[in-house]
Amino acid sequence: MIDFTAHYFTMKEADAIEYARTMLDYFDASSELTCKEIGDGNLNYVFRVVDSKTGRSIIIKQAGPVARISDEFKLSTDRNRIEYEILKLQNDLAPGLVPKVYKYDPIMSCCVMDDLSDHIIMRKALMEHQSFPQFAEDITTFMVNTLLLTSDVVMEHKTKKELVKSFINPELCEITEDLVYTEPFMDHPRNDVFPPTRAFAEAELWADKELLLETAKLKFEFMQNAQSLLHGDLHTGSIFVKKDSTKVIDPEFAFYGPAGYDVGNIIANLIFAYIHTDAMLAEEVRKEEHKNWLAKSIEEIIDMFKVKFLDAWKEKATEVASRYEGFDQFYLEGIIKDTSAVTGLELCRRTLGIAHVKDITTIQPEEKRARAEKLCLAAGKRFILERSNISRGTDFVRLLKESEARF
Amino acid sequence: MIDFTAHYFTMKEADAIEYARTMLDYFDASSELTCKEIGDGNLNYVFRVVDSKTGRSIIIKQAGPVARISDEFKLSTDRNRIEYEILKLQNDLAPGLVPKVYKYDPIMSCCVMDDLSDHIIMRKALMEHQSFPQFAEDITTFMVNTLLLTSDVVMEHKTKKELVKSFINPELCEITEDLVYTEPFMDHPRNDVFPPTRAFAEAELWADKELLLETAKLKFEFMQNAQSLLHGDLHTGSIFVKKDSTKVIDPEFAFYGPAGYDVGNIIANLIFAYIHTDAMLAEEVRKEEHKNWLAKSIEEIIDMFKVKFLDAWKEKATEVASRYEGFDQFYLEGIIKDTSAVTGLELCRRTLGIAHVKDITTIQPEEKRARAEKLCLAAGKRFILERSNISRGTDFVRLLKESEARF
Repeated sequence: MIDFTAHYFTMKEADAIEYARTMLDYFDASSELTCKEIGDGNLNYVFRVVDSKTGRSIIIKQAGPVARISDEFKLSTDRNRIEYEILKLQNDLAPGLVPKVYKYDPIMSCCVMDDLSDHIIMRKALMEHQSFPQFAEDITTFMVNTLLLTSDVVMEHKTKKELVKSFINPELCEITEDLVYTEPFMDHPRNDVFPPTRAFAEAELWADKELLLETAKLKFEFMQNAQSLLHGDLHTGSIFVKKDSTKVIDPEFAFYGPAGYDVGNIIANLIFAYIHTDAMLAEEVRKEEHKNWLAKSIEEIIDMFKVKFLDAWKEKATEVASRYEGFDQFYLEGIIKDTSAVTGLELCRRTLGIAHVKDITTIQPEEKRARAEKLCLAAGKRFILERSNISRGTDFVRLLKESEARF
Repeated sequence: MIDFTAHYFTMKEADAIEYARTMLDYFDASSELTCKEIGDGNLNYVFRVVDSKTGRSIIIKQAGPVARISDEFKLSTDRNRIEYEILKLQNDLAPGLVPKVYKYDPIMSCCVMDDLSDHIIMRKALMEHQSFPQFAEDITTFMVNTLLLTSDVVMEHKTKKELVKSFINPELCEITEDLVYTEPFMDHPRNDVFPPTRAFAEAELWADKELLLETAKLKFEFMQNAQSLLHGDLHTGSIFVKKDSTKVIDPEFAFYGPAGYDVGNIIANLIFAYIHTDAMLAEEVRKEEHKNWLAKSIEEIIDMFKVKFLDAWKEKATEVASRYEGFDQFYLEGIIKDTSAVTGLELCRRTLGIAHVKDITTIQPEEKRARAEKLCLAAGKRFILERSNISRGTDFVRLLKESEARF
């Protein structure tokens, strides 16, 4: 019998079954457990343990000792503690929009949570051209509740500072600082540039000093501005969906940062889906339909976010200065500008940096992928440089469509 | 014999002598110790223990269990740990510009440090119209070294985040958030308004919605922006001077905040000295001389800060984005705008809020004090509202002199 209380080791599927049997109060003694490691992220092992007699199942997620993306990133397994605590907190703030967590085990660096196998990873679903009418509603509720309610607008300031302290996340923030804010904007050895895209990147991004200067401002904003408790990695690979349900997962990058970081990640990843559909869906009518749904979702997410944000502000703000005339609008417009910038950063970094998205890399043939990547870069650059003119949902869609028309 | 290792209690002078004898390795067995409590701050007890045989002396500074300013502020005695660690760090960053610390005692919440009795508190010295030719040089070195070298420009980002965590300072930040950023800008019950100043405050400050909105922006900047490890209370009462020496003391408000907060406090408190001299120094020639020295110091502090800041940036920046063309200037101009705003906040809050400065309250007769206070408020408001046009040392002096000409 394995002693899971002695010291950390990386579990295999058989270990996860034994862990479920001996460390959890979830399955009956008569259960017949099977297990599969289903992780496709870069940092963790995800074990799905199922009782084949009853169909009941659970997820055991264990932090690996190093990032799976590259041995260069050595990561403390403390991120699993962060994930557990964040999921509990997010479930309080936005009930039903994250998986329930049952246990955190600091020795094995794992946490145990709901199995969402009846859901599908949103990136995959979008690449199959599925649409989710509930998504804009759910994700804006999630973002407004987690971002505004953890800010100094709503939260008692001493409590907020304790949360800031508790979720200082140096190692995962470093990954973002390097991979999102720095490397894609120069000819960096860790980049992974699709050869037909290189000349465009050199001419339009790497040679542009104005763009470089803006990325410096944004990077310092990311490092300094403890505005809201972010998810920190809110792309469509971190979201489980089905028609009537949205579950945000994988908050291990969580820390206090600029609220627009989360919103911008959502928008950029819907743009990847849009570009994927444009390139890969053969049937014209369905293509236009799905592109229209995606464009409409982008527009709605921005506009619904703004409406819900101001409503929640009105209802829940506790900070006296948040009641001063005009401050809510000023604050919100700042978030939308950050959203635009982060949309642009994400579009560029997923194209040129080390961590690509399948929406783009699966585009065939090569010329189509090259066109798609140039579109990502051209739009990305504009979302960064023109952020002070971006305010409404239609501004985001207009900029995307104008960039599309260029290629 | 008292057991200082059992539990915290508030020391009296006799206890401090025994503490020096039994807990420190500083005085000989044959020493003849005397002690005086010399604290005039609001939060701590400061015991000066002297060996009358040799003249050797030392300071034992103990955190009181509540703020002496008002029982409303209950403070954790953890601030003494913060003070000890900050003084050690500041002495590494800016050698010779803070007192040396010898010991921190977490049970008694006290720390032991150099006695600076050969120095004088700068506020007092300035009210006696003394000048300090070394001051601009020293204080700009102190500020550039402590502010820039603890920022993400120079410091490795994971190390910086550990420092942010270590110096989260919820209680003392709350005092600043309330007393500096909020209460002075409304008719708040905790304000202490000199009656002849009230009508002016009502008309020019409390009725001004634009000003109120700017204070909200600045308050959130103070709460969110973890730019540099601040002193956090850098007024002329926190500085010991003699002709050839400057020692910054009392860093218990230290935390990661906007760098301009420290610089603005210095400038505002030199302005208080300027206004005091104008009102109270009878002899015209000496008055002009001392006012000129103060104005020149303000100008030099801003301009020397900027030059030294860019030099240190060039020499010590490690962050790759800090080398992008134009970013150093952008970053520095942001600090100067914050400096202007904080100069304005400090001018207003010391006039209307609970914590006054003697430079102003000692002005006699009443009409002169009222004039001085209106000047503080009028200039303060402009430093806040016009901060985006303020960049050079002469801009600060010009705005002061234009405000002076109004009354």
